Amino acid sequence: MKYNPVTGKILDQLIEILGEKNVLTDPAKLETYSHDETPIEQYGHLPEVVITPSSAEEISTVMKLANLELIPVTPRGAGSGLSGGAIPEYGGIVLSVEKMNQVLEVDYNNLMMTLEPGVVTNSVNEEIKEKGLFFAGYPMSVESCYIGGNIAENAGGGKAVKYGVTGRYIMGLEIVTPTGEIVQLGGKRVKDVTGYDLKQLIVGSEGTLGIITKAIVKLLPLPTEKVDLLVLFKDIKSAIEMVPTIMTRGGIIPTGIEFMDKLSIKKSCEYLNEHLPYQEAGAVLLIEVDGHKVQEVEDDAETIGELCLEKGAIEVYVADNRTTQERVWNVRRNIAEAFKVFSPHQSLEDIVVPIAAIPELMPEITCISKKYNIQIPCYGHAGDGNLHATLVKNPDTDMQEWYQTEEKALYELYQAALKLGGTLSGEHGIGSKRRKFMKELIDPVELGLMKKIKKSFDPNNILNPGKIFKLE
Amino acid sequence: MKYNPVTGKILDQLIEILGEKNVLTDPAKLETYSHDETPIEQYGHLPEVVITPSSAEEISTVMKLANLELIPVTPRGAGSGLSGGAIPEYGGIVLSVEKMNQVLEVDYNNLMMTLEPGVVTNSVNEEIKEKGLFFAGYPMSVESCYIGGNIAENAGGGKAVKYGVTGRYIMGLEIVTPTGEIVQLGGKRVKDVTGYDLKQLIVGSEGTLGIITKAIVKLLPLPTEKVDLLVLFKDIKSAIEMVPTIMTRGGIIPTGIEFMDKLSIKKSCEYLNEHLPYQEAGAVLLIEVDGHKVQEVEDDAETIGELCLEKGAIEVYVADNRTTQERVWNVRRNIAEAFKVFSPHQSLEDIVVPIAAIPELMPEITCISKKYNIQIPCYGHAGDGNLHATLVKNPDTDMQEWYQTEEKALYELYQAALKLGGTLSGEHGIGSKRRKFMKELIDPVELGLMKKIKKSFDPNNILNPGKIFKLE
Repeated sequence: MKYNPVTGKILDQLIEILGEKNVLTDPAKLETYSHDETPIEQYGHLPEVVITPSSAEEISTVMKLANLELIPVTPRGAGSGLSGGAIPEYGGIVLSVEKMNQVLEVDYNNLMMTLEPGVVTNSVNEEIKEKGLFFAGYPMSVESCYIGGNIAENAGGGKAVKYGVTGRYIMGLEIVTPTGEIVQLGGKRVKDVTGYDLKQLIVGSEGTLGIITKAIVKLLPLPTEKVDLLVLFKDIKSAIEMVPTIMTRGGIIPTGIEFMDKLSIKKSCEYLNEHLPYQEAGAVLLIEVDGHKVQEVEDDAETIGELCLEKGAIEVYVADNRTTQERVWNVRRNIAEAFKVFSPHQSLEDIVVPIAAIPELMPEITCISKKYNIQIPCYGHAGDGNLHATLVKNPDTDMQEWYQTEEKALYELYQAALKLGGTLSGEHGIGSKRRKFMKELIDPVELGLMKKIKKSFDPNNILNPGKIFKLE
Repeated sequence: MKYNPVTGKILDQLIEILGEKNVLTDPAKLETYSHDETPIEQYGHLPEVVITPSSAEEISTVMKLANLELIPVTPRGAGSGLSGGAIPEYGGIVLSVEKMNQVLEVDYNNLMMTLEPGVVTNSVNEEIKEKGLFFAGYPMSVESCYIGGNIAENAGGGKAVKYGVTGRYIMGLEIVTPTGEIVQLGGKRVKDVTGYDLKQLIVGSEGTLGIITKAIVKLLPLPTEKVDLLVLFKDIKSAIEMVPTIMTRGGIIPTGIEFMDKLSIKKSCEYLNEHLPYQEAGAVLLIEVDGHKVQEVEDDAETIGELCLEKGAIEVYVADNRTTQERVWNVRRNIAEAFKVFSPHQSLEDIVVPIAAIPELMPEITCISKKYNIQIPCYGHAGDGNLHATLVKNPDTDMQEWYQTEEKALYELYQAALKLGGTLSGEHGIGSKRRKFMKELIDPVELGLMKKIKKSFDPNNILNPGKIFKLE
C-alpha cells in the first residue's frame, strides 16, 4: 500500500471536523502516541497527527476523509497493549478515544452498562460495586486499560477460568466501519442469531475492522467472598494435573488457577522481599474461588485443598483474608517487574496450549532457554493453558544480538506451542509484534480468509494497516 | 444466481467420489430431505440429489466439483431446524452429515470432546455423564438435533441463563470452506486471540460459510443436584421484574428462568390432563437452580422463593424431586403440541428483547393477536428475553388467508421487538423463513457487511444459497 502524507490541507480539514484542541501535532505529544507497552525502539513509530474525537459522527467524517485521501488511521485506547496494536506503523493519523470516556448508562433492570470506549476498565466496576454487580472482562491491566482496547484485543486475565474472557460480556457495539459508516451491532439482548455475529467478529479484531465508539456490556452478581490457596507441588506435571481434577472430582470451577514456576516466584519474592514458602516446590498454583456465601466458598476451598494434598501437593496455604490474599497476588503480579531489575529487555509472551499439554511444553521451553542462553520464567493462567513465558535478555549480550536471538527463540517457542495444539497468543494479540510469525506459522487458508474479511470491510486498507497481517 | 442442474454426468462423478449407496436419487427418499420443522408446503423444496459423505476429504472433493459445475449444496443435520436452514431452496445437492456420527475422542484431561457433526446432541451427554461431565450447549431439541446443526444455528435452550448458548462451548472446528479447502479453526485451547475469531463466525452462520466436519467442544462439571420452582404471579410485569432481582439481590444466576403466559399453561395443562395450580395467575415462572451440593441448591431455591414472595408472587411451588420436576417441565415442553390440537398451522417464533422490555412487549403482542384474530400464546426463556410467541392459525380461516395474515402479523411482531431494542431471532435463526423480514428490518449497512463476508468466503454462492439473505 502507498499512503499519502498528512498535508497542511488535511490538518485544516481535521481541525474543521474536530476543533483545534483535538488535533495534536506537537512532536513531544506525538511521541507519547508512538508506542504501547512493547519496546519503543523495536516497534515504535511516530504518527503524523493525533486526533481526540468526541463522537461517532466525528470519527465517521474522519474515516471518510481518510479514505478519500488514503491516509492510514490507527485507533488507540490506553496504550497498554503488548503486541503493538495501537502503533501507527505507517504514520498517518492516530485516533485516540481518550475523550470518549463516559459511562453512558447503568441499566440495573437489564444488568447492562453502556460505555464509551475510553472508560478505564476498573472504573466500570467502581461504578457498580455498591449495587452488587461487576463486569467480568478483567485483564491484569484492569487499572489502566480502556474498555475499547480491552474489547478490541478480547483480553483475558486472572479470572477467565470461571468467567471467560472479555468477549463473553460484550452484548452490543457501536462501531464506525473503515469506510465511515456508523453501525449498531447487537444490543441489550443476551441471545441473537439474526445473521452473522459481526459483533463477535469485531471483538478481538485489534481495531482493524472498525472503531468501537460505544459498548453495551453485561454485568454479573458481584461475588462477595473469596479464598485463595497457594499450593506447592514437587513438579509442574503434578501441579497441572490438578486442573481437571478440581473441575471433575471437585465439581468446582475456580475463579482462577494461576501458575508460577520456581524461577518466577523466587525472583518476585526476592524483588518484593516477600517470604512465601516456595523453597521446596518445583511449581506453585495460586487457586482462587469466589462466591456469595462464606460457607460455600470455604467448602470449595477445603475440597480443593484436600484434593491437592491427596494428589501429592507438598503443602496448601490458605489465604482467607484480604491482607494475605493481597500478599500472594502481589507476588504473582510482580514477576515481570522483578525480572526487569535483572534485565530491562524482555519479550513478554502469552502462548496458549491445551491445559493438559503444559507439562509437555515446559521441557521445550527449557531447551530453548538453554540453547539461546536466556532465562525464560513461566507463569500465568494455568487454568486456561495460557502461559506468560517471558524471554529475558541476558544482560551481557548486545542489543543487535538480542534482537536476533529473540526472533529465533520466539519462533521456536511458537512452534512448540503449535506442535502441542496451541497457538501464538491467548490474550495479547498479534498486532505488529507477532505478524511475521503469524504469516509463517498459521495455515495459509485460514489467514487467507482473514485477509478477505479485512479487504471486504476496508477496501483501501486504511484502518490500522499492517496489524495481524499485511495485505499485499 | 443461475445454477446448473445435476446431470447424469454429475451423478456419476458423485458416485465415484462417494460410492453408490451414498448418492440418493429415489424420489421418496428425496422428499424426506425437502423440509425441516417449518411447514413443508410453505418452505419445502426437493433436492435433485442427496449425498451422505463420510469424511472432510469427500466433502472437499464435492465442493470443488460443485464450484466447477455451479451446483448449489445445502448442508443438513437432523432436520430439526425451525427456519428452513437445511432446505435446498434452489435444488441441487443436499449434503447430509448423518453418517458422520462418531464421537472421535473424549479427552478428560482437557475436559473436551471431539465430535463428528452427525452426533445427536443428547448422546454427547450420555457418553460422559458417568465421568461427572456434561456439554452445556443444550437446545430444547437436544434429543434429536445433531451437534453440527446445533453449532451452525448457535442454538440456545432452557439452560442458557446460567450456561450461555452453544457457541460458548465450541473450542475448535474443522470446516470445509465453500470453495473446498479443509481448515482447522481453534482447537483444544480455551483462549485464542491469534487473528480474527473465524470459528465464532462459523458458529451461527447457518451453514452458509462452511460445512462443519469436526467439532471440539468444552465440557463442564455435571451438576448433580437441582430444584425447580413454579412461581405464580398476578401479571407479567411482576414476573419479569424477578429476573434482575434474583441475580442482584439474590446473587444467584439460575440455570433457567422459563416464562409461560396464562394461555400457554392453560392449554398445555388441558392437553396433558395435568393439574398445575395456575388458575389465579396472570403469568408463571419456572425457575431452575442446579449445583453440586444439595444444601447449596436448596439454599438458592429458598432465597429465590423468598424474594419472589416478598415481591408479590401469589404462590411458590417447590419441585425438589425428579417426578414433580418432570411434570412441571412437561407442561413447558408441550405448549406447542397442545396448540396443534387446536390448530395444526402455527408460526413458532423466537423473538428476543432486553429482559426488562418483556412487559412492554406483551401488550403489543395482544394488539397483534386482536388485530389479526389469531391466538398468540407466549412462553419461553424469560431469563434471556427470548420468547416463543407462537402465531396460531384460526381454524376457520383458509390457508391462503392464513399465509397473508401470518406475513403481516410476523412483520408487526418483529417490528415490536426491534422497537424495544430486540431482534427477530434468539435461537432459531433466519434461514429461508425470516429472510424477507431480515432484508426489510435490519440495518442495510450491517446486512451489507454480512453479504461481503459471504461473497468473500463463497464467490460462486453455492453453499446454502438464499439463507439469511439473497445475494444479488
